[in-house]
Amino acid sequence: MKTSAKVLTLSTREKYQLIDITRSVEEIVSDSKIQEGLCLVHASHATAAIICNENESGLVQDILRKVKEIFPAGAGYQHDRIDDNASAHIASALIGASRSFPVRSGRLVRGTWQNIFLLELDGPRGRRSVDVQIIGE
Amino acid sequence: MKTSAKVLTLSTREKYQLIDITRSVEEIVSDSKIQEGLCLVHASHATAAIICNENESGLVQDILRKVKEIFPAGAGYQHDRIDDNASAHIASALIGASRSFPVRSGRLVRGTWQNIFLLELDGPRGRRSVDVQIIGE
Amino acid sequence: MKTSAKVLTLSTREKYQLIDITRSVEEIVSDSKIQEGLCLVHASHATAAIICNENESGLVQDILRKVKEIFPAGAGYQHDRIDDNASAHIASALIGASRSFPVRSGRLVRGTWQNIFLLELDGPRGRRSVDVQIIGE
Repeated sequence: MKTSAKVLTLSTREKYQLIDITRSVEEIVSDSKIQEGLCLVHASHATAAIICNENESGLVQDILRKVKEIFPAGAGYQHDRIDDNASAHIASALIGASRSFPVRSGRLVRGTWQNIFLLELDGPRGRRSVDVQIIGE
Repeated sequence: MKTSAKVLTLSTREKYQLIDITRSVEEIVSDSKIQEGLCLVHASHATAAIICNENESGLVQDILRKVKEIFPAGAGYQHDRIDDNASAHIASALIGASRSFPVRSGRLVRGTWQNIFLLELDGPRGRRSVDVQIIGE
Repeated sequence: MKTSAKVLTLSTREKYQLIDITRSVEEIVSDSKIQEGLCLVHASHATAAIICNENESGLVQDILRKVKEIFPAGAGYQHDRIDDNASAHIASALIGASRSFPVRSGRLVRGTWQNIFLLELDGPRGRRSVDVQIIGE
């Protein structure tokens, strides 16, 4: 059995932003030499999420708009008295901070339109980290 | 260590549809001979999702209705100028295209009312594929 | 390769409740002696979910309020004729009944503000169980 663990670090520029990390994740899978297994992409943050979908500029805006609609900022949250970012926390909690993928024949299994994104919900942040953990053989 | 990888292929008949794949997933787990490990059920699609819940006909309709409410079609999305299915993409991104389960004593661990479904969000489609990846020993 | 499987059992006191299980999950990871791998936290229930976020009392209330807003009880669901808990089922299906984490250097990888919670959606319940499955080496 093999495991491979890498941490991607990146910075965000906007309060809400989608950052495509597909290429970096695929390089980590390739470098791991693991042929068959699982790959977990995990953001160790309570105000960010990991999602998977098409990287089309209009859709990227649509997704961010919908996230803001479902989880509007400043809607009388108790946590906002402490940190003014409750909506980011709630979105991260319900959307999820990780996504998993099969690894097969040494490659990440994903659909043609399934790119992997860090979803920033409370930027800009100088340092966001995404753990990529692969296990298999 | 063992891994097992199978792909389920299925067709959908409706724009929004829930298709119960529990039996197929459990057969793959059984055939894998893996006793202890993890099972990832992953749809390689950007306009479908995998969810887990009770297969009761009324509830199936309730879930589909709620998905349409949270992610209404045609709500002025930019991506609709290209492909007219932005709501399906957004729902897939936020609900998630996969679910994971423990495997214990050679069986998928799930609750009595936890069936596994492909959630079609942009059907009908002649060919949808679901990857079932099991890893363990 | 090693695997470790434990079941946490707990009771809930409210219809909607967040119960922090971080410490229990981390003890299971530590006891497993697995250094590098994956940890799946899975609720075998169709009316509960697993989420990950900050354990701040105001935020806990904010999350529960938002869940009730997105998935309001008694909104004319067909399933309510059978069991009067359709909103709990729908929330569990769309939020997800599990979350996954990397295990690295013998520890669960999570952010400072990422605590792990069972999200009760249809309590009170005398017995809820959460499977913690770890795989690695």
